[in-house]
Amino acid sequence: MKGFLAYQTEENMSLFTDLYELTMCASYFDNKKFEPATFDLFIRRLPPERSYFLFAGLEQVLLFLEKMRFTDEHIEYLGKQGFEEPFLEYLKNFKFTGDVCAVPEGTVAFPCEPLIRVTAPIIEAQLVETFLLNTVNLQTMIATKASRVVQAAKGKAVVEFGLRREPGIDAGMKVARSCHIAGCSGTSNVLAGMTYDIPVFGTMAHSFVMSFEKEIDAFRAFAKTFPNKSTLLIDTYDDMAGAEKAAVIAKELEEKGCRLGGVRLDSGDLAETSKKVRALLDAKGLGYVKIFASGDLDEYKITELITKDAKIDAFGVGTKMGTSADHPYTDVIYKLSETQNGEGEFSPIMKLSEGKITLPARKQVYRLKDSKGNYTKDLITLADEEAEGEPLLVKVMENGKITKKLPALSEIRATAAENLSKLPEQYKKLTNAPTYPVELSQALKDLIKELKLKIRNTEVTSQN
Amino acid sequence: MKGFLAYQTEENMSLFTDLYELTMCASYFDNKKFEPATFDLFIRRLPPERSYFLFAGLEQVLLFLEKMRFTDEHIEYLGKQGFEEPFLEYLKNFKFTGDVCAVPEGTVAFPCEPLIRVTAPIIEAQLVETFLLNTVNLQTMIATKASRVVQAAKGKAVVEFGLRREPGIDAGMKVARSCHIAGCSGTSNVLAGMTYDIPVFGTMAHSFVMSFEKEIDAFRAFAKTFPNKSTLLIDTYDDMAGAEKAAVIAKELEEKGCRLGGVRLDSGDLAETSKKVRALLDAKGLGYVKIFASGDLDEYKITELITKDAKIDAFGVGTKMGTSADHPYTDVIYKLSETQNGEGEFSPIMKLSEGKITLPARKQVYRLKDSKGNYTKDLITLADEEAEGEPLLVKVMENGKITKKLPALSEIRATAAENLSKLPEQYKKLTNAPTYPVELSQALKDLIKELKLKIRNTEVTSQN
Repeated sequence: MKGFLAYQTEENMSLFTDLYELTMCASYFDNKKFEPATFDLFIRRLPPERSYFLFAGLEQVLLFLEKMRFTDEHIEYLGKQGFEEPFLEYLKNFKFTGDVCAVPEGTVAFPCEPLIRVTAPIIEAQLVETFLLNTVNLQTMIATKASRVVQAAKGKAVVEFGLRREPGIDAGMKVARSCHIAGCSGTSNVLAGMTYDIPVFGTMAHSFVMSFEKEIDAFRAFAKTFPNKSTLLIDTYDDMAGAEKAAVIAKELEEKGCRLGGVRLDSGDLAETSKKVRALLDAKGLGYVKIFASGDLDEYKITELITKDAKIDAFGVGTKMGTSADHPYTDVIYKLSETQNGEGEFSPIMKLSEGKITLPARKQVYRLKDSKGNYTKDLITLADEEAEGEPLLVKVMENGKITKKLPALSEIRATAAENLSKLPEQYKKLTNAPTYPVELSQALKDLIKELKLKIRNTEVTSQN
Repeated sequence: MKGFLAYQTEENMSLFTDLYELTMCASYFDNKKFEPATFDLFIRRLPPERSYFLFAGLEQVLLFLEKMRFTDEHIEYLGKQGFEEPFLEYLKNFKFTGDVCAVPEGTVAFPCEPLIRVTAPIIEAQLVETFLLNTVNLQTMIATKASRVVQAAKGKAVVEFGLRREPGIDAGMKVARSCHIAGCSGTSNVLAGMTYDIPVFGTMAHSFVMSFEKEIDAFRAFAKTFPNKSTLLIDTYDDMAGAEKAAVIAKELEEKGCRLGGVRLDSGDLAETSKKVRALLDAKGLGYVKIFASGDLDEYKITELITKDAKIDAFGVGTKMGTSADHPYTDVIYKLSETQNGEGEFSPIMKLSEGKITLPARKQVYRLKDSKGNYTKDLITLADEEAEGEPLLVKVMENGKITKKLPALSEIRATAAENLSKLPEQYKKLTNAPTYPVELSQALKDLIKELKLKIRNTEVTSQN
């Protein structure tokens, strides 16, 4: 038996793939298809109520591409699955040697815009598909959701509290990272705090209170250990009785020259209770004691609390944000857009399956802005077209090596804040936001028209 | 910069925890609370439309508990977070020394039934909370969802295809494991196949077809590499034209003494198309060629396809199952149910927060069955009560050591199949299933009544 996590090593991630990537590659190999191809990673459509994406996950993608190898154990396993010797020999020496262009992490993006563009011998470009999709899906989905929660909080702090119900270990880590990119102040996840240098926050659980004979004993014990940074959970038995006891502790701390940090509410009518607790604390001269709220929060509930003028200083947001509960996936895809033949000629490629049409050729995305730098429109063009605006896709990897220093998490967070500030307010409405304009260049439109005609002629009407 | 996965080591998982577990433990330590306590891990309520849980994740929990340690890097980081030397010294020598009772993986379970019961010095029992919740949440949620999908397929094979949109690496691995437990035939995830010895399946993607000049060239190339196990994806351009070409390839293979495995449909009206494709293949004497369907499937869509008599031999199910998309979390919680004082006296504990009441004391769950072994009722009792039926919680760890050989995945899968077969049909309805009866023993009811009264007297009405 392997350990509970021992197989989740960086060395093993080359097998973290759908089998069909390997069967296709075996056939490419067998049929001597080694020419370069280009794949676009993009998200087909917006989930309900979302009006933009906040792109995240590129760092992990690039580090994976640099490190991707097949181990002896992999080769042996694939041999048992029926893959043949020459292809296994090829995998033994596999290294990713391609070029990658991508939009920076923290960029606001829209459906069908290429987020990552991979150009590599087709076997290599195909083999990396699953890892790239898995990574971008999780982080972009969560960063997008978290940016909505942060926005709803109108400048009050949001702390990511979802670790216990985030789906697995990697999600726990990457959710903390993505939420911080999106503007959350910190996380409850200590390992993420250590790994990514994100501030960590924590108070106490009901179990702590219940493990003492009386609630006030629990409060006193906690305040003894953390005399200047205790946040007391006051709703284990009855929130107003709990608030009274917290005030007693605050006064005891004052006598020692210390200050109670805050109280936490985790159930009931948070708007109503927070007002009553605020009044109780203020009446006792405890205006400095903060009120922290948690319990089933998301961007809609926070909006409601703010609208009701709840007296809450910071929000702990868990499951709903950490799982993107209302839509726990994106329609992220990775599609072939161009092949090259032995003579170096490029062929743009597109797919016509019902409802799943893709954009052909290597492309670029230009962002148009007004005089204040606010975003007005995006234009998807062919890669070599000249256009106005800022090109979003930049070269980040060449010949399998990272060419651009990876930004620190704090820089990515700043990019996200800057991007979100330049996206006009109307596109940030939490419900019923209008569609941000993304247009195709004339050259791209012409190419699509031409290819549709060609495909109908060669693949649909003929029987060849 | 750390690698993209380097921090996700088994050694690091002791910090994969909410900070408040550590702050509470620091205060327990500071206040010299080392007595044993019991915590129950259970799920508070059923997600919409679910009528049972299929429990999974215990293996990873137990392996974690045996291995949990704090490294020098952890201690240094926690020191910087303000934890004090004596507590850090305690953590340096930390080992989990508790006892664990649990229901076996693959057991059908219901809300509020303890699934894992941890008895350990309170610091130890508290510190493991987050990892346990994270692990059980993911695997139980997915096993439960997958069991519904398998049931909908009425004996036809279901293959788990969701890796690309499962939330992260750990989810990708554990979803494959949980789905196999629940009855899925296999997975597309090669690393999960290798790690857990699960059959792996894969066909081809649209990109493979599009990388060739003509669709039929792609089919021919693939069939050359896999002459006896090709499944051809026929909907890249037009499904019926694709089916015609697949038939041509099948005939070419027959001439070489080989057989085409199948065709795959991934878009459009799967019921209608599958019938037309079946007719086309049958008319050409290709009755042996299987039809495989994928594309946005879940238990409801599969039920619809089966009802419409779709000619589909196997289902590839991805995102909706792999994310439990309609409800991507469980209300799993870990609650203190009993403490012990310095004199060895036990105190049962319960919580009264609005809508969040818990069951006090160490408990057992008995499953009552009819003469055929079918489940009729569960009874939650105090741990030392005698009752009819089969006790579900069994000792799996003593003094921090696993006491019972961990079952192989195939055994867990058999347990799940047996459990699901004994759950009467009415409770397996995909919508509007009745509530399975779970009752509390009289002794447990009496204890709850007594504790409620006591809490109201000491915590709510008094101001102490």
